[in-house]
Amino acid sequence: MIMKKTEIFDTTLRDGAQSEYISFSISDKLKIADALDKFGVDYIEAGNPYSNPKDAEFFEKAGKKHFKTAKLVAFGSTVRRNTAPEDDEGLKALLDAGTQYVSVFGKAWNMHVETILGATPEENLNMISSTISFLRSKGRTVFFDAEHFFDGYKADPAYALEVIKTAEKAGASAIILCDTNGGCFPDEISKIVKEVSKTLKTTIGIHCHDDVGCAAANTVAAVKAGARHVQGTFVGIGERCGNAALTTVIPDLQLKLGYNIIDPARLKTLSKTAWFICDVMNMTVPVFMPYVGYSAFAHKGGMHADGVAKDPRSYEHIDPALVGAKRTFVVSEVSGRSSVLPRLQLFDKSLTKSSSETIAITEKLKELEYEGFEFEAAAASFELLVMKELGRFKPHFEIDHFRIISSMDSIDGKSHTEKANALVKVKVGDKYEITADEGEGPVNAIDKALRKALEVFYPELKMMHLIDFKVRVVTSNDSTAAITRVLIDSTDGARSWTTMGASRDIINASVIALTDSLEYMLKDK
Amino acid sequence: MIMKKTEIFDTTLRDGAQSEYISFSISDKLKIADALDKFGVDYIEAGNPYSNPKDAEFFEKAGKKHFKTAKLVAFGSTVRRNTAPEDDEGLKALLDAGTQYVSVFGKAWNMHVETILGATPEENLNMISSTISFLRSKGRTVFFDAEHFFDGYKADPAYALEVIKTAEKAGASAIILCDTNGGCFPDEISKIVKEVSKTLKTTIGIHCHDDVGCAAANTVAAVKAGARHVQGTFVGIGERCGNAALTTVIPDLQLKLGYNIIDPARLKTLSKTAWFICDVMNMTVPVFMPYVGYSAFAHKGGMHADGVAKDPRSYEHIDPALVGAKRTFVVSEVSGRSSVLPRLQLFDKSLTKSSSETIAITEKLKELEYEGFEFEAAAASFELLVMKELGRFKPHFEIDHFRIISSMDSIDGKSHTEKANALVKVKVGDKYEITADEGEGPVNAIDKALRKALEVFYPELKMMHLIDFKVRVVTSNDSTAAITRVLIDSTDGARSWTTMGASRDIINASVIALTDSLEYMLKDK
Repeated sequence: MIMKKTEIFDTTLRDGAQSEYISFSISDKLKIADALDKFGVDYIEAGNPYSNPKDAEFFEKAGKKHFKTAKLVAFGSTVRRNTAPEDDEGLKALLDAGTQYVSVFGKAWNMHVETILGATPEENLNMISSTISFLRSKGRTVFFDAEHFFDGYKADPAYALEVIKTAEKAGASAIILCDTNGGCFPDEISKIVKEVSKTLKTTIGIHCHDDVGCAAANTVAAVKAGARHVQGTFVGIGERCGNAALTTVIPDLQLKLGYNIIDPARLKTLSKTAWFICDVMNMTVPVFMPYVGYSAFAHKGGMHADGVAKDPRSYEHIDPALVGAKRTFVVSEVSGRSSVLPRLQLFDKSLTKSSSETIAITEKLKELEYEGFEFEAAAASFELLVMKELGRFKPHFEIDHFRIISSMDSIDGKSHTEKANALVKVKVGDKYEITADEGEGPVNAIDKALRKALEVFYPELKMMHLIDFKVRVVTSNDSTAAITRVLIDSTDGARSWTTMGASRDIINASVIALTDSLEYMLKDK
Repeated sequence: MIMKKTEIFDTTLRDGAQSEYISFSISDKLKIADALDKFGVDYIEAGNPYSNPKDAEFFEKAGKKHFKTAKLVAFGSTVRRNTAPEDDEGLKALLDAGTQYVSVFGKAWNMHVETILGATPEENLNMISSTISFLRSKGRTVFFDAEHFFDGYKADPAYALEVIKTAEKAGASAIILCDTNGGCFPDEISKIVKEVSKTLKTTIGIHCHDDVGCAAANTVAAVKAGARHVQGTFVGIGERCGNAALTTVIPDLQLKLGYNIIDPARLKTLSKTAWFICDVMNMTVPVFMPYVGYSAFAHKGGMHADGVAKDPRSYEHIDPALVGAKRTFVVSEVSGRSSVLPRLQLFDKSLTKSSSETIAITEKLKELEYEGFEFEAAAASFELLVMKELGRFKPHFEIDHFRIISSMDSIDGKSHTEKANALVKVKVGDKYEITADEGEGPVNAIDKALRKALEVFYPELKMMHLIDFKVRVVTSNDSTAAITRVLIDSTDGARSWTTMGASRDIINASVIALTDSLEYMLKDK
């Protein structure tokens, strides 16, 4: 084990905010900062108080909080051309953020200095030097982001090195080499970081973007070459293709390469933290994401499931528990009894590959999959199916009948869609309840009516609500008569579960998934 | 420019099918194979005919097609232990697929040989050798996938090398080094591929998984180290965290590193092909995906947008046009118009960025996009929208009103879903027609009723039929009241076109898309 401490610098709230589709409220930012602190990152870069007035307000509020491990960092630019630092609005805002730590970025690529900044190479060096000196004179600890460092180095190595030497001399505490355009490869990064570490005494940082799909590999290569300050966003969001994902590079460095980064107990909260942060950002963790994606340790091929059952190392590069992830076996047509079995054993340990129940359920699954059912993502429906096949399922209700009416009327040449109306009659034991409701479309209407009827018998259903509803057309070549698959995620506040239904009729598919969801909520009753 | 030809081997239809959430119909597979061929990959690995009967059917159908650039490859395993190749069911199925090219995988990691296969190292070598010789004797060209090669090499380099030397000797045409568990880093890959290339004369291939976020970097490193056969899935789907994405590694190798892989004109169809393939798989291209993601060339930070306006190189590592992608500016209104304008000029060449029509249509688009409409994939709906805004659209019909009834009844404890019934009244000129029809679910019912009513006035609509119908939930957090987007592909036998609708009510969204589709068919009348 290599025992050098490598600092983690999260910029979800600053560079991450530059992602398309991402927009943080102040309360979102406070929640994410708390989660990052609890997880254990060293620095949280939380915004640019000059360019975004909301960020200034955030620093005011966050400044009053007590973070356990993380230091808050405000971000800004070097001084404007021909401006004294004390007269610069940007630097004033940066100081007003009131953080001990500040990041400033400056240009390290001669093309940028000339074309974008319209400055001479000397002017640029002076701007960097005076900015850092000024911030140091105000007692700040300064991180210098050398923007486009790698492109700059490739274009003019002498100038790029002069830029960072200037920053070191002016008192920067870490110098971060940025692959701002994300166009570099690991061997280039490695070579250049090694060159830089011959020149600098200051801590070297790395900041990568994913435009050639190498953000994680580049970050790892930089650390191997001597960088000890790692910048990224927690789940990889950021300008264009995003930044290096800390959920990938932290376990890469610690679990695969032996760097000492974070307390192993905290690393076990990696997945949970990623899911929480994504929830706040109103996105889902990308399913295929290394370590934390829903599929990261999902085994689908029959042979893979077989192998993992014999020895997890056979198809897993690490133990998923180390990052708080779970191994799953996907049930599907390419998988046979061996991938079904571990899931059945959760319900009955005595089952084997040759038990008649295992054979029967595997056959039943194939049959249902042919009809368009697919249990991969619907563990709750799968559990109910198994219980039914094992003779352990007792339904809590029956739908006696329903009617749904959808209508549209044209009034003065404009079409008006009315709310859909649903009427439903349910049977619980030997009692009946008939009621109706209306909703946004037929599925919403029957969903509401069905709950309304059942809540008479099961008031606990009031606790339950749907959190996601997905529709997928399975056999697309039959056009509007195609098989439709519906997936529903539900929660009772404490747990959440997923159910599914499939049918040529979307209403029918939805009712199957809704029924499963309600039965699952009631199953332990 | 380095001019060595590097082969591209796409395994979307085989390893990609091992992704969680992915399930292909035969017609999906045929569509994707056509798209890959049109794009220009060298090989399409399309399935495992032994483990999946649907794959056998696919090969039967695909065998009759004429592919322009791509060769079809069937995939299978080495012979079972203690079985003669001619008696092996798997090899029989592989030959029955009838392809000239076959891939077989065998074990290269001693742990796997012993623990998973339960074979001796010699037995494993014999199985590999006899399998390849047998397939060669049947006239097949054989690719050998050395499963877990890198893990095997790390554990026991001599044995791993013996495995691939055995495959070479038996007549394999390419030997593919697989990082099956996806746990390797580029420097390791590079070192090991260099070692291997000292030993083998046969073409070396590379097959990487993304479990440490390095699939693209590892693939590129292998090619730099001498591999000349690149395996991946088109958009990176695959077991667990997925395979190397060809949409990333092809432009990485060709545009960034100068390898000669594909005709530049075809590379310009990269984005379009990725979007098409994802559409068939009913997923969206991940927004942050390098080169082809919606955000890949999206500039949000004000400074970035400014910089790109001065010199695109300032924040773009390549010209997006080279991969058929578009630069977008996330917040700027001006740029909104600049991206809409070229599409408007198709209908009216006199329009400029400051024309009132350009401004109005850009505003209208923003408004509709906010409501869930997205015209990217629905060119026909976009054209109708533009025509309406330019005042050049005359509707051919109006829907006066419709009613749809969906119902279910329980008979003797079993639920029976009835066909949905739809009644519709349309107005054409000053004439009315009212009729009804029934169908599989409410959308199919209204589709049939609407056509039936309109065919009275427009008999040519009999020529038209829907070829695809897709449903996507846009805002997933409102559960069953979420916004739903419907895409419809229609054809009249000669042309085909795509229309869309969005609404909280799936019926309403479908009727909007159907109406556009019918109007588009009638537009030149």
